[in-house]
Order: sequence, then C-alpha cells, then structure tokens
Amino acid sequence: MADPYQTHPRRIAIIGVGLIGGSFALAMREASRDITIVGYDKDEVNLAAAKQLGVIDSAVHSLAAAVKEADVIQLAVPVGQMETVLSEIAKVISATAIITDVGSTKGNVIEVAKKILGAAVNRFVPVHPIAGAENSGVRAARKDLFNQKSVVMVETDFTDPLPFEIIRRCWQACGARIELMTVNRHDSVFGVVSHLPHILSYTLVYDIATRIDAETFFHFAASGFRDFTRIAGSSPEMWKDIALANRETLLLELLRYQDLLRYFQDSLESQDGEAIENFFKIARDARRDWSD
Amino acid sequence: MADPYQTHPRRIAIIGVGLIGGSFALAMREASRDITIVGYDKDEVNLAAAKQLGVIDSAVHSLAAAVKEADVIQLAVPVGQMETVLSEIAKVISATAIITDVGSTKGNVIEVAKKILGAAVNRFVPVHPIAGAENSGVRAARKDLFNQKSVVMVETDFTDPLPFEIIRRCWQACGARIELMTVNRHDSVFGVVSHLPHILSYTLVYDIATRIDAETFFHFAASGFRDFTRIAGSSPEMWKDIALANRETLLLELLRYQDLLRYFQDSLESQDGEAIENFFKIARDARRDWSD
Repeated sequence: MADPYQTHPRRIAIIGVGLIGGSFALAMREASRDITIVGYDKDEVNLAAAKQLGVIDSAVHSLAAAVKEADVIQLAVPVGQMETVLSEIAKVISATAIITDVGSTKGNVIEVAKKILGAAVNRFVPVHPIAGAENSGVRAARKDLFNQKSVVMVETDFTDPLPFEIIRRCWQACGARIELMTVNRHDSVFGVVSHLPHILSYTLVYDIATRIDAETFFHFAASGFRDFTRIAGSSPEMWKDIALANRETLLLELLRYQDLLRYFQDSLESQDGEAIENFFKIARDARRDWSD
Repeated sequence: MADPYQTHPRRIAIIGVGLIGGSFALAMREASRDITIVGYDKDEVNLAAAKQLGVIDSAVHSLAAAVKEADVIQLAVPVGQMETVLSEIAKVISATAIITDVGSTKGNVIEVAKKILGAAVNRFVPVHPIAGAENSGVRAARKDLFNQKSVVMVETDFTDPLPFEIIRRCWQACGARIELMTVNRHDSVFGVVSHLPHILSYTLVYDIATRIDAETFFHFAASGFRDFTRIAGSSPEMWKDIALANRETLLLELLRYQDLLRYFQDSLESQDGEAIENFFKIARDARRDWSD
C-alpha cells in the first residue's frame, strides 16, 4: 500500500463514548497498536471514565478539537442528536475525513447527513452494529461486544467505495460479520424485530405501573414477565429518538400488529379454541425454528 | 397427632405428570419418606418416563385406578381439561379425599369444581404455583422447582379449613412461599402480569412468521427479540386453555393495553418527543424498581 492511511485509519474520533462507541474503541485498540483514539462526550463524567478506563487515548472537551485531524469520525450519539453534532463538526472536518455513525435507524440519519454534509456525503458511511444491551455508558463497554455479531452497512448511491471499504475493515477488525442492506429494508426490518418489541414492552410496564395497586401486580410478576420486559429497562432518551427517527415504519407496524391483536380478540370473544391454538402454534413453531 | 393422615397425606395421586405435577411429586418424595405417589397421564410415553425417572411410585392407566384410596388428588392437567377429568373422577373418589389443582387460572376451575363436585367442593383446594418454564413434560421436572417460589392458594367460602391446611403444608414442604388471594384478584393480576404478555409475545412472532420474507426478519432478530419472545415458545394447547379460561379479564385488558398503544401512536404521529420519552421513562423506572 502506498498510503497506509487509505485502508487503516491512524486517528479515530469517537463522538459519544458510550456502550457502542466505547466498545468500538476498545476493539480497535485491541486490533491495532498504531492507532490514536480521541473521545468526546457531552457527559463529562462519562468522558473522564472513558479516559481513566483506557478506552480512549485522550479526552477532549469540544467537538472541534475531537474531529480535528481525525481520519475517521464515528458518531455514536443517540440518533436524535445526529443533526446537531453533524452541524457543529461540518465546518471543521478535514477534506479527507471519513464520517460514519452507529445509529439504530438509518433513513433519518442519512437524510440529515445529506442535508448537512452536502458534497462531503460521499465520505459518509452509515452503519448499524447489532449489539444492544440494556446497559449504557462507557462502563458497559467491552472489547468483544461485536465479536461474531452482525454489523449492518447500508449500501447507498452516495458513499464512495474507499471510505466504505475502510469502515468495513474497521468492523471486521472488531470481529463483526458485515451485512449489507438498503436503507428502507434496514428501517423496515429493525422496526419490526427491534423497535416494535421495545414499544410493546414499555407499554406493558407502563400499563402496570400506572395502576393504583401496581405493587400487587409487580409482586406476582415472574420469569416470563422478567424476560418480556427486559428491554423496557432501556434508555428512554435513546428509544424516544429511535421511535421518532423510524416513525413512519412504526406507525404502519403498530397498525398491522393491532390488526393481529384484533384477530386474536375476535377468536377469544367467540371462544374459538381451534383458531387460538393455531395462532399460538404458528408463533411457537416459528420461535423454535428461530432459536435452533 | 391422633391421626397422621390429617396433616400428612400417605397416598397422593398426580393427574398429569408434567413439569408441575412431576416437580411436586419429586419435592414431596424428597420431603417425606412414608408417602406413595401414583401417577396418571393420558400421554403414555410421558407416564412411562415418570415411572422410569422415579418421579412416581406407580403408573396407572385409568383415572379411577389413580384416585382410588388417594388422600390427595392433584389435578395437574391443562385448565381446559379440568372439567373432563373432574367428571371422570367425581364418582370414584373416597369420601375423605382432598382434591386440589395447579391451574394458572382459578375462576373457571372453581366454577367447574362447584358444578361437578357438589357438596364435596368443601374438600377442593384451588392452588396456582408460580413457577412456569417454557419446557413441559416430566423430563423438565425438578425437585427444587418450587423452592423459594410463590404458590398462590385461593381463599374461598367453600373450602374446609383442614383440607386447606393439609395442602398448605404440602407446598411448604416443597419449599414454597404461600400467598393468599381471592379468585377475582388472582385472575386479574395474572391476566396482566402473565397471560397478557404471552399473547403479546405470540402475536409479535406470528406477525413476523406470516410475512413472505420472514426469513430476513428473523435473521436480524437479536437479544432483545430473544428475551421478548421467549414465552412464545410455550405450549399452544396450555395457553389456549388459559386464554379461554381467563377470557373476560383478557378481553378487558387487551382493550386497556390498546388504549395505551393508541396514546403512544398519537404521541408518535404528532412527533411529541417529550410525551414519548416520559412514557418510556415511567416504564423504565418501574422496571428498574421491580428488578432491584
């Protein structure tokens, strides 16, 4: 290689050193010695912890300082903050820096990136690593978080091949399995398998929590409830952003889901045991096939 | 004690030697040496396994033979089969035998018991051990399944004190924590914390399984989906019975749940981020308090 920079970034700026940004930093440091990782986080306590834990080489206190001279800038902030962050860094990034993100929704992030980056969107690489956890913050970061996990890279008509390839190699160095998807397909699939269950789980806990005798209900909740509601322990701010960002998919999917609930209600209303058992059986069989 | 029979059954008949009946048998054998456990199961393969695994002392092949001379008869069949089983045994049970059940719903089981047992309902003790698992069948049975787990005993106006006390001691011998509830309270609480989440989880998997491109969706489903849908791996027959048995509670709770979903949809439609975040936050905080 004439220029190692081209396939191997030397200086990475992580904007938002939480679970995902922090784990990416740890995995990249593990994979490569000659790399410098600069971190920025609006939460100063979290940022100090990132430095103290050795997740980043240096903690900086302004976005401009973070992205200065960075080869790769990873935006690892909640999707609702992408626009603000991109606006702040757009004028200070170098002419060759690659910008990438790790947001759970892609349509709205891409829209914002196009609007703010203009022609520089050819160096924007939209990514979604599939490695959630209820815990957040840099203390939950682990160098093996992405090992053998899927990382979706969105195929666009605007990203240049080289930035795409560089980011792909970074994630491969983290142990991830790269999956390619279009933006619409991504938002539709994750709207159903991830965002919708979060809303359903939050809603069940809200349903119980807002009863005057909530305590009795929670007292008798057991392991099925625990599993079903684990994702309701996730960050409200992050999931508010995701819901808003994938709003159109979710409004559609909530209607479809409620059509199915009404089908179930009708079967129950008319005491159609065969229809109910068949409904459950289709789901049970599919769940078993999936887990096998 | 003048008569050890009064507080300590010598012969227990388990009707339906599955996860719950089998685990009760194992725990009772562990707690007491001078006890004989007779098992009946309409699934002959499961029944043979129960005998072979030492869960029961003898396997019998008719309900009449099972309940003959039994001090305690535990009905551990799906709630939809209670009526058939009770009808078959009503004429052959002894004049002192205690009948008890382990059904997940109580209102309909009590209704059936009153109808079929008549005056003998004073020896009927309705119980619900809170120890589910997706696995079923005697091979999943464990002697410590109820250890430190809640077992709800329904307080009725028809059960005599002595049968109630004898069954209470059996469950205490299994290591269970006894909780007392009225029948309506029981069905309402478990309708919300257990039955409703099962329906919601089955419905989400059904939603995905019935799409033409279900495979892609399942491919990207990750840990949040896994936890949320674990209960959709449960027995369709058993949960069909539970849904039918707790039909009125569930029809009501499904309406309440969908009212809350519509509140969420309205907030999303109008892009009211504050309302969405607050909705999630109330749920998140309650879920955290519960798990602590």
